[in-house]
Amino acid sequence: MNAPDCLFCRIVAGEVPSTRVHDDDLIIAIRDIAPRAPTHILLIPRQHIPSAVDLVEADGPLLGRIFAVAADLARSEGIVDAGYRVVSNVGRWGGQSVDHLHIHLMGGRSFEWPPG
Amino acid sequence: MNAPDCLFCRIVAGEVPSTRVHDDDLIIAIRDIAPRAPTHILLIPRQHIPSAVDLVEADGPLLGRIFAVAADLARSEGIVDAGYRVVSNVGRWGGQSVDHLHIHLMGGRSFEWPPG
Repeated sequence: MNAPDCLFCRIVAGEVPSTRVHDDDLIIAIRDIAPRAPTHILLIPRQHIPSAVDLVEADGPLLGRIFAVAADLARSEGIVDAGYRVVSNVGRWGGQSVDHLHIHLMGGRSFEWPPG
Repeated sequence: MNAPDCLFCRIVAGEVPSTRVHDDDLIIAIRDIAPRAPTHILLIPRQHIPSAVDLVEADGPLLGRIFAVAADLARSEGIVDAGYRVVSNVGRWGGQSVDHLHIHLMGGRSFEWPPG
């Protein structure tokens, strides 16, 4: 389940410090250490799933939790009325920097199109 | 369930043409009409959900389907090895152009950071 050399597994386990804004049985949410927007939160499953390409239909409950918590955090951050962006990167061209699935919740500014 | 003035509800119903690359009981996937990457596909629930902020935990099965089909499409498009990006926009600052939830699957080129 957990990968000993994975930064996010170590953050989930509390071995590496983070600014946690949510914590439950399936996921944690932390502030990005290199924020690119006034609100920049990462939603991270406790389970080591390498990236979005590894998700299967049976991960529905996990994804339901991720998106419900993302919406709750967007409300508590006050970014809903103006709008925000949700992003997940896969692999090198996607810009994935940690090989443990995470969803970026970014808001508090206007975003250009295309998304990178 | 359906919103008569919603472009994506009309596309789901087949009243507006689209290039459909997937179709099942929960979602469709179409090619973006203004692609910003060699692969640019929209995954769209049949149900009219305005945006990602309206998702609740009970939408888990829908989200499981969306992400499983996105991974399958990424594989069939040949964009997995290089990597890709998955994006959902909420509201004006997020850049949401149609008020019916949709997930952008974008690949075939390298993406910058931040994502817009």
